[in-house]
Amino acid sequence: MPVAISKPAMERLSQYRRYLLHERQQKRTFVFSHQLAAMMGITASLVRRDIMVTGCMGNPSKGYRIDDLLDAIAQLVDTEEPTPIILVGLGKLGSALLGFFRSRRPNLRIVAAFDTHTDKVGRVYQGTHCYPLDELPATIHAQQVKTAILCVPSEAAQEVADTLVVAGITGLLNFAPTRLYVPANVYVESIDLTTMLEKTVFFARQHDCARD
Amino acid sequence: MPVAISKPAMERLSQYRRYLLHERQQKRTFVFSHQLAAMMGITASLVRRDIMVTGCMGNPSKGYRIDDLLDAIAQLVDTEEPTPIILVGLGKLGSALLGFFRSRRPNLRIVAAFDTHTDKVGRVYQGTHCYPLDELPATIHAQQVKTAILCVPSEAAQEVADTLVVAGITGLLNFAPTRLYVPANVYVESIDLTTMLEKTVFFARQHDCARD
Repeated sequence: MPVAISKPAMERLSQYRRYLLHERQQKRTFVFSHQLAAMMGITASLVRRDIMVTGCMGNPSKGYRIDDLLDAIAQLVDTEEPTPIILVGLGKLGSALLGFFRSRRPNLRIVAAFDTHTDKVGRVYQGTHCYPLDELPATIHAQQVKTAILCVPSEAAQEVADTLVVAGITGLLNFAPTRLYVPANVYVESIDLTTMLEKTVFFARQHDCARD
Repeated sequence: MPVAISKPAMERLSQYRRYLLHERQQKRTFVFSHQLAAMMGITASLVRRDIMVTGCMGNPSKGYRIDDLLDAIAQLVDTEEPTPIILVGLGKLGSALLGFFRSRRPNLRIVAAFDTHTDKVGRVYQGTHCYPLDELPATIHAQQVKTAILCVPSEAAQEVADTLVVAGITGLLNFAPTRLYVPANVYVESIDLTTMLEKTVFFARQHDCARD
């Protein structure tokens, strides 16, 4: 049974976890809500509300036990088994992301990559096998994949997204700089890196002029 | 003189441009505001308002001439000379982004990369030279760099950001999964790829359960 949880709350839980893992590495055992709040730039009461959903209880004088809180977030957010993910489009960004995501979370596993280029198909990238696009449906069914990372050129993105959705994908992390049209039961998260860089350059210049 | 323009409007102009470049490649010469609107999922009147800022005039029966609109956006958004950008942190993600951004916009040039690892310093990655961190201020001054891409581990991010800001950086594209504290005259755009993927996986599962 999925717990009802908003998109921003989910994002915050993921960020708390990042911070908690770091604190645990530093041999700390407890954390206060106001520490999490300061790290995120939000209020401590919002942090406590988010944590309440996980069922983890804090101690007024010591805060939350980091191990307990990590377990509680994992129970809420993770599946017990590793989640299989596929990546489509092994261009520069796709191959880079394959390497990047590989080492992030043991629970998130990129089980297969896909590309149209015959020189890529059949090869192994960062430990992940590359298949031709027409094997997408079979892999998605066989491994019960629900999430796909989309790194194809924008002109191909909609068509590939359609194929993915028909095959059973319900979550898309889209790096193609284009708007995807998907049914209401499919979640799309889009990241347009070039636009982000252009925007940063633009405001860097504006701020610089304002400073003169 | 910088034109006053909001962050969302700037982001939209950048996305219009992406679409226009694609349309021009397809040998189209005119575009209507409602086409741009449909591609972005916004209203045509918002598109027209954005374009009005660029000074480009449309034709009621044919729409906007694509070449004119591209020029107008470039005049507003781009500098006349290529904008120098630096990238700090040549780990998996940093080296990947170096390759990715290199080929995106001729006007955005990553002029130098920086890392602490002695085996990376002195080498050339994707055509970009890697320098040690202590050369950051000199490079930033010499090349009048205002924008930096930050790909260092989270525990190093704040310290590196401080160095960058002191040296004159006013725009940061931050990939470190941590909140950066910077003066008000510095623009920060943060992208946390792992959180984005976790969020997509979570909602993919929720949507899938909802469908059963």
